[in-house]
Amino acid sequence: MTVGDLTERDLIARIEATLPPQPAWLPVGIGDDAAVVEPERNRLEVLSVDTIVEGVHFDRAFCPPEAIGHRALAVNLSDLAAMGAAPRVALLALALPNALPLTDFDGMIGGFTTLAVEHRVHVVGGNLTRSPGPLMVDVTVIGTAKRRQVLTRAGARPGDAVYVSGEIGSARAGLALLRASVGSHQSSGISPQSAVDSQSRQSGSPRLTSDDSRLTPDDSRLTTDDWRLTTAYLRPSPQVRLGVWLGRNRAANACIDLSDGLADGVHRIAEASGVGIAVDAEALPMAAAARDVFASRGDDPIVEALIGGDDYELLFTVGRRRTRSLVAAAQHAGVALTRIGECTDRQGVVLRRGGSEAPLPSTGYAHFAASREGVDGPA
Amino acid sequence: MTVGDLTERDLIARIEATLPPQPAWLPVGIGDDAAVVEPERNRLEVLSVDTIVEGVHFDRAFCPPEAIGHRALAVNLSDLAAMGAAPRVALLALALPNALPLTDFDGMIGGFTTLAVEHRVHVVGGNLTRSPGPLMVDVTVIGTAKRRQVLTRAGARPGDAVYVSGEIGSARAGLALLRASVGSHQSSGISPQSAVDSQSRQSGSPRLTSDDSRLTPDDSRLTTDDWRLTTAYLRPSPQVRLGVWLGRNRAANACIDLSDGLADGVHRIAEASGVGIAVDAEALPMAAAARDVFASRGDDPIVEALIGGDDYELLFTVGRRRTRSLVAAAQHAGVALTRIGECTDRQGVVLRRGGSEAPLPSTGYAHFAASREGVDGPA
Repeated sequence: MTVGDLTERDLIARIEATLPPQPAWLPVGIGDDAAVVEPERNRLEVLSVDTIVEGVHFDRAFCPPEAIGHRALAVNLSDLAAMGAAPRVALLALALPNALPLTDFDGMIGGFTTLAVEHRVHVVGGNLTRSPGPLMVDVTVIGTAKRRQVLTRAGARPGDAVYVSGEIGSARAGLALLRASVGSHQSSGISPQSAVDSQSRQSGSPRLTSDDSRLTPDDSRLTTDDWRLTTAYLRPSPQVRLGVWLGRNRAANACIDLSDGLADGVHRIAEASGVGIAVDAEALPMAAAARDVFASRGDDPIVEALIGGDDYELLFTVGRRRTRSLVAAAQHAGVALTRIGECTDRQGVVLRRGGSEAPLPSTGYAHFAASREGVDGPA
Repeated sequence: MTVGDLTERDLIARIEATLPPQPAWLPVGIGDDAAVVEPERNRLEVLSVDTIVEGVHFDRAFCPPEAIGHRALAVNLSDLAAMGAAPRVALLALALPNALPLTDFDGMIGGFTTLAVEHRVHVVGGNLTRSPGPLMVDVTVIGTAKRRQVLTRAGARPGDAVYVSGEIGSARAGLALLRASVGSHQSSGISPQSAVDSQSRQSGSPRLTSDDSRLTPDDSRLTTDDWRLTTAYLRPSPQVRLGVWLGRNRAANACIDLSDGLADGVHRIAEASGVGIAVDAEALPMAAAARDVFASRGDDPIVEALIGGDDYELLFTVGRRRTRSLVAAAQHAGVALTRIGECTDRQGVVLRRGGSEAPLPSTGYAHFAASREGVDGPA
């Protein structure tokens, strides 16, 4: 049974069945020419759209359907978080290959709506269309914030401390594990998962605890470390609460999400704010398991962490006087924050490492043809 | 020069260069993680998203780039018009094949922004990504309307007159002309346009006035009739003013746009409103040239007009007492409105033709695999 076997209405009905009841501020939801929403009073609206494309942003060989749905929404929620906005509304546009199994469709919708419910986001409309090529998931989200609480990339000042939430590089390491799991074995009939296993054993550190060929990439029999890394890639947790908190408390002067990597994020803040930024390589918060993955492949963990996107953490700058109260509040809330550098009155971005300092290149200037993604967030 | 040769930033800069200055209600536009918009006071917001996909909704062999950009926005504006909403904001998400010529990119953006400016729609953000498959253009629009002025599909009452704006079937006839123009000649090195010409001559009614092989489908040397038909398909004019006028004057009880065809639209209003609808086949407003195209192909013009989508006209119902003032106002405004039937207290939709009456099938139940488009408007 594939989506091509069903009518449009059947597919829409399957989506509607997963949604909670319409809130009072949604006079017209799914099913008319357009949705009708009552704006929130005394709030600005923050809008973001992001598309994830099969073969560019995800690979169905190792991304379970619900992870695809989850990621499609998570990347947008992360954009809103970077602006200090609380998400409210989502529109979901899908371009579906006819051969997509119905179970995959359901899984994808399930992953999407589960994350939506978690963040109290209402799916108010969308669009279904056939794709003669890859699966594409396009999501528009709208959030709200008070005028004075909106965070942009442009407010950093010399002397600000630069913070990052969570860990960086984990998603990239998880992606490397997932890619290796399907690698050259994909067409040989060997399951991706036993391939992970054999690849891992070749590299000297068994990553799976079983040879069972039915093992899935996010199987409970993955080591805890590997599960954390692959989960960081497959099911990123957007820092919605942190972003809203930073905005409400006016704790951050500038903020961006790390969808395009830390190096790119630092450059974007530096450019938009007209400051320099110095990053301490040794301070970068990385999971030991992620360092191991990069090291085992002969890659420099610091470089990988700097260029790796998909972390969906927040990078932000904090005025000197506010750093203490920020750290105290974060500890109280259980959010890991790490100070990784500071803003300077020089131009440019530098990386301090092993006592020396060198310009940190941005990866944001990559040619479109080679880029992981053309643009993240509003064009 | 293709889009793959440029950086993301170059492409974004090319889009920004086509945009008018940011209005005061747009504190943060393109270039941050998300856009920030000040809502309009005392208005509800009306949201729609639509994706057009190469090979499903358009064919680059006969759709000029600016027509692709125009259509992508027009289909969304039409959805807002059907709700009585005035458009305000658009987000543009593009999935681009690397080989897309830069001139085509510019043309597409130009077609989009020209229509946006015409309707005072501000492009506040978007997303660019690479596509390993077809070109996809995904557009989200947000409009506004007062609460009591929102039109839905659900307000029709027995006794209401059923009206349609403009002409129906023209876009379908134009598409037939365009398809025939590339048909079997596409791979033979013969230009699509001389193919139009030879195909037309075979059918006995020359459609082009020149044999020049460089003729384009929307060339000025097309006959006026054929130009009108192909333009109806390539550059539909969404009925934004009419929709807003119907809402503001509370002139319509129910309204829908004809993106999925008249038969489908009539069924949707009948179902949503719980009424029956009788349509008079002889009353359907069709261009003589469109009838000729269908007849020359051996097709029934009435059937083609009923099932043809892409007209982007409005179908709406009007209470008995309001029909006179409506027609007077429309004549004054120069908008063609045609009464094509009425709402009944029976269930179902019937077509009256040649003195007899038969059930009118909806085409909206087509299987997803075969459908022109999965869903139009919010899922």
